[in-house]
Amino acid sequence: MSNEIYLDNSATTRPYDEVVQYLAEVNRDFYGNPSSLHTKGIEAEKLLKKARTQIASILKADAKEIFFTSGGTESNNMAILGYLRANPRAGKHIITSEIEHPSVLEVFKQLSLEGYRVDFIPVDSKGIIKLDMLRKAADKETALLSFMYTNNEVGSNQPITEIAKIRKELCPSGILHIDAVQAFGKTDIVPSYMNIDLMSVSSHKIHGPKGIGALYIKKGVRVKPILLGGGQETALRSGTENVPGICGFGLAAEIASKNMDESYKKVSALRQRLVDGIRANIAAAAINSSDETLPYIINVSFPELKAEVLLHHLEQRNIFVSTGSACSSHKSSISHVLKAMGVTPKAIDGAIRFSLSASNSYEEIDETIRALKEIIPVISIKRRGKVW
Amino acid sequence: MSNEIYLDNSATTRPYDEVVQYLAEVNRDFYGNPSSLHTKGIEAEKLLKKARTQIASILKADAKEIFFTSGGTESNNMAILGYLRANPRAGKHIITSEIEHPSVLEVFKQLSLEGYRVDFIPVDSKGIIKLDMLRKAADKETALLSFMYTNNEVGSNQPITEIAKIRKELCPSGILHIDAVQAFGKTDIVPSYMNIDLMSVSSHKIHGPKGIGALYIKKGVRVKPILLGGGQETALRSGTENVPGICGFGLAAEIASKNMDESYKKVSALRQRLVDGIRANIAAAAINSSDETLPYIINVSFPELKAEVLLHHLEQRNIFVSTGSACSSHKSSISHVLKAMGVTPKAIDGAIRFSLSASNSYEEIDETIRALKEIIPVISIKRRGKVW
Repeated sequence: MSNEIYLDNSATTRPYDEVVQYLAEVNRDFYGNPSSLHTKGIEAEKLLKKARTQIASILKADAKEIFFTSGGTESNNMAILGYLRANPRAGKHIITSEIEHPSVLEVFKQLSLEGYRVDFIPVDSKGIIKLDMLRKAADKETALLSFMYTNNEVGSNQPITEIAKIRKELCPSGILHIDAVQAFGKTDIVPSYMNIDLMSVSSHKIHGPKGIGALYIKKGVRVKPILLGGGQETALRSGTENVPGICGFGLAAEIASKNMDESYKKVSALRQRLVDGIRANIAAAAINSSDETLPYIINVSFPELKAEVLLHHLEQRNIFVSTGSACSSHKSSISHVLKAMGVTPKAIDGAIRFSLSASNSYEEIDETIRALKEIIPVISIKRRGKVW
Repeated sequence: MSNEIYLDNSATTRPYDEVVQYLAEVNRDFYGNPSSLHTKGIEAEKLLKKARTQIASILKADAKEIFFTSGGTESNNMAILGYLRANPRAGKHIITSEIEHPSVLEVFKQLSLEGYRVDFIPVDSKGIIKLDMLRKAADKETALLSFMYTNNEVGSNQPITEIAKIRKELCPSGILHIDAVQAFGKTDIVPSYMNIDLMSVSSHKIHGPKGIGALYIKKGVRVKPILLGGGQETALRSGTENVPGICGFGLAAEIASKNMDESYKKVSALRQRLVDGIRANIAAAAINSSDETLPYIINVSFPELKAEVLLHHLEQRNIFVSTGSACSSHKSSISHVLKAMGVTPKAIDGAIRFSLSASNSYEEIDETIRALKEIIPVISIKRRGKVW
């Protein structure tokens, strides 16, 4: 597998070897149901507690504020629906942005059918929400504001501190939900310092197992469960706990957190090398991600070609990238994020997302640039029909 | 671990070694996001397809009728809520039994608050629903009937064929949901032959990984998703697919299915040995499970003692059993199943569930009987204060 150049780390990551090993160990030796009263259950319960403490400690939160879910999508659904169902009198107005993940956007669309007034705040060309528009939208009826920490397609970071200030000033009964799936483990986020009430995180974006996420719920914030049953996770998330998954998530989060600064520096350098290489070799390319984004995601438009064609040529060389986000690849529609940022349809057609991990190497970046340099002239629409 | 006698297989099972190994392989080498357009995504998508076909083939269903979820609880929630939300005009009456799993009972309670008329059909002393009561309850307004295939506390099998007949005769617009979590992989169930419309199954009860289940949805039956987002699982269950979990489930189901008859025979013999041993050595014990149950679960009341005390004495000898079901161990309330069966409060207090797997041995059963024989006189309430 060492000859793979995997630059699709925002879609999903390869689990750390330590995590894979730990998963096997937990599956083999700690297979008890945490609800069982005997030692096998208690051992499993202890492992859950350990993982909960690992996640909580990274977020400087209390372990009681961490609730495990089946992933980012469930966390986002649970945060928004669960809060509004628990607080039907909090107001009938909710706010999000135009560039959220489908697991937020679709829930908002559903709520608009249920009588909620919904505002989708537009973004600027950098993919950052227009704060003046947020000011205009926010009012006393606002029950909930939901924004991504880092966008999954272009990497833009929302100004959470400013958003929290506006919320405090204009929405006295509004609570703040942050979808931190792409940011968790990559940059320091302390929800209590940032006045975040609910925050979604996911395991498989940080080299942990798939099928596991968590929701941070600030102490005192009432949320109703969206899955009913045996009352696990303090009755907020029923279903036998995915003990190995939770353990693997805890370990991955701990590794990510420990290496956070080092990884950030390395990924920043990888990004710079990639951006410099593209600029130097493919003059027509336009970097859609601004320099102020989280360095892990770089969205680039290569004009005069179809991104999907480029993607397939790259994969023939074992280089794996994405067009738009993986989460919406089932749909043929164009990227709602780039569209909201004002990228032209033609540039969206040729947009590729490179998403990095600290496990990528400089050589991989150089190889990718070489590949782009060779492939692009061949597949460019302008050149079609010419013999090379 | 070989000195463990694990008789709590209805709470959860130890994953097969092959499954643990396969999980590691998928995590390491097939970590792509199935929604990704490149080879890594396509490889993952192929693995999903393989697992879907494995589950479908066991159920003699079409792969398009299988939807992966995070487990039995989500499958039950999705079946009931998803069907009723998709079919609001199907009627406002729903039927279940008194002995269902909390992930069905709690959903029914919630629906009763939302205006649904709800009937909980009582059971006889064998834990089988009273068909005459079902006949009385069923009517033209009935939108959905939900019954367990095999009960998780006592192992009783519901008369699904009779239920389906009554449904057809009296509930022309009612659909049938079966919670087959405890039966799947242990006995042959073909939903289409049995006129089942929706059926929940789970992985971790059959030596597969935790955190994975599936819902069978008969072709043509409309269900609304309960988790919204990127549109995975044909838009019925959003969220990046837990590829390793799904693969492990597929493999576990295939192994279980291949060995089904052999396992059934062995477990029947294990059960007989356990029941005979208890009857021969502990005269006062009462077997709460009838002989017509699935052999995997045996519920026994040991009068004049507290089940929890017996459980802890057994675990000191590395024998792991359960009081009631693990799923409700967080609650201090007594077993709703035994209560519904008319077991006396005193007998419920002393009720232990032994749940078997084909991986258990005859020696383990003999050791368990020896342990019961030694422990019970010591902890019996009658004997308290006496010196032994």
